[in-house]
Amino acid sequence: MRKPAGRGLFITFEGGEGAGKSTQAARCAGYLAERGHEVVATREPGGTPTAERLREILLDGAVALDPLEQVLVLYAARHNHVTGVIRPAIERGAIVVCDRFSDSTRAYQGAAGGVDAAAIDAVERLALGGFGPDLTLVLDAPVETGFARVRDRGGAADRFEGQENAFHRRLRQGFLDIAAADPERCRVIDATGGPDAVWQSVRAALDAVLEA
Amino acid sequence: MRKPAGRGLFITFEGGEGAGKSTQAARCAGYLAERGHEVVATREPGGTPTAERLREILLDGAVALDPLEQVLVLYAARHNHVTGVIRPAIERGAIVVCDRFSDSTRAYQGAAGGVDAAAIDAVERLALGGFGPDLTLVLDAPVETGFARVRDRGGAADRFEGQENAFHRRLRQGFLDIAAADPERCRVIDATGGPDAVWQSVRAALDAVLEA
Repeated sequence: MRKPAGRGLFITFEGGEGAGKSTQAARCAGYLAERGHEVVATREPGGTPTAERLREILLDGAVALDPLEQVLVLYAARHNHVTGVIRPAIERGAIVVCDRFSDSTRAYQGAAGGVDAAAIDAVERLALGGFGPDLTLVLDAPVETGFARVRDRGGAADRFEGQENAFHRRLRQGFLDIAAADPERCRVIDATGGPDAVWQSVRAALDAVLEA
Repeated sequence: MRKPAGRGLFITFEGGEGAGKSTQAARCAGYLAERGHEVVATREPGGTPTAERLREILLDGAVALDPLEQVLVLYAARHNHVTGVIRPAIERGAIVVCDRFSDSTRAYQGAAGGVDAAAIDAVERLALGGFGPDLTLVLDAPVETGFARVRDRGGAADRFEGQENAFHRRLRQGFLDIAAADPERCRVIDATGGPDAVWQSVRAALDAVLEA
């Protein structure tokens, strides 16, 4: 994985609840901006006004979308985000840092939610063609560690955080399987330590890519 | 096309703007109920609380979903509608009368909007398997007739009604092509006359199916 000349870079952060993705993605964006890169920091689901409207529905506990319906809505939002924000930024040479992307759909709705990988592949082909991240940092921590962090930050449990333990074990394994199947793109980062310790690992992975 | 014993029937009304679908679908539902059938009258996009939330987004002029994104959101809503309302009703023997269904996606987003038929097929296979209407009444009228009716009813122009003329010509042809390709399921109804004249044609088509 290296940054091709004249083209930006698409970096995603992935992982389960309480893995520290948002914190590390923000540090990553700041670090890259300090080094003089144009950085676009974004997130999924969301990242455009239209995709944020779809996000509201996906995270609204009163809305009963099953996992396959979530996949369809997620890829509608993702297509909007990629065509409206991510691809134009990369084409002008920026580094896009995104908190969650397709791997979250494969782990949440696929591995943990029971939607066939082939079904997700089919929707992804339609919505993204072959487009995807250059580098994905999978923040990995035991389910209990993630839960404790979510409790500590006192955040409202959204529909995913309200799921039971077995779901979150399948989710973690789903992310690890994705990373194992695509070692060129993915780096698994041990996220059990504090934010500074995790950041050292994230920064090392970033430096390896930027200096390659 | 005939109503199998012990199973209900799924009837859809299709057509462009101002073709009179909603009026005829309501008459159809009343007629069938008078004849002693359990009738479920519904519409798309929508038909469940979750699908109606997605409908709001689809018809909100401030939301910028492109045609492919619309297809994904429409089939998420359709899956919800089919699993939550349509299929259970048919399985208990009811007749479901639906104002718009998959053919509208093929005509609006496909024939008129430019999304590949193969892409719509792929999404439909995932979302519906082989499920679809037993009988589809395609209300056909010249674009100008439909426009005049929309103006007369003074309705607010939603995103589809705001499209230009060429779009509506492709739309009409899209519906006619769908009907020509599936004559077993589809009946094209001349919708240029008044509501009573059109109803005579619709009722004749219904009677032919119910008495078959």
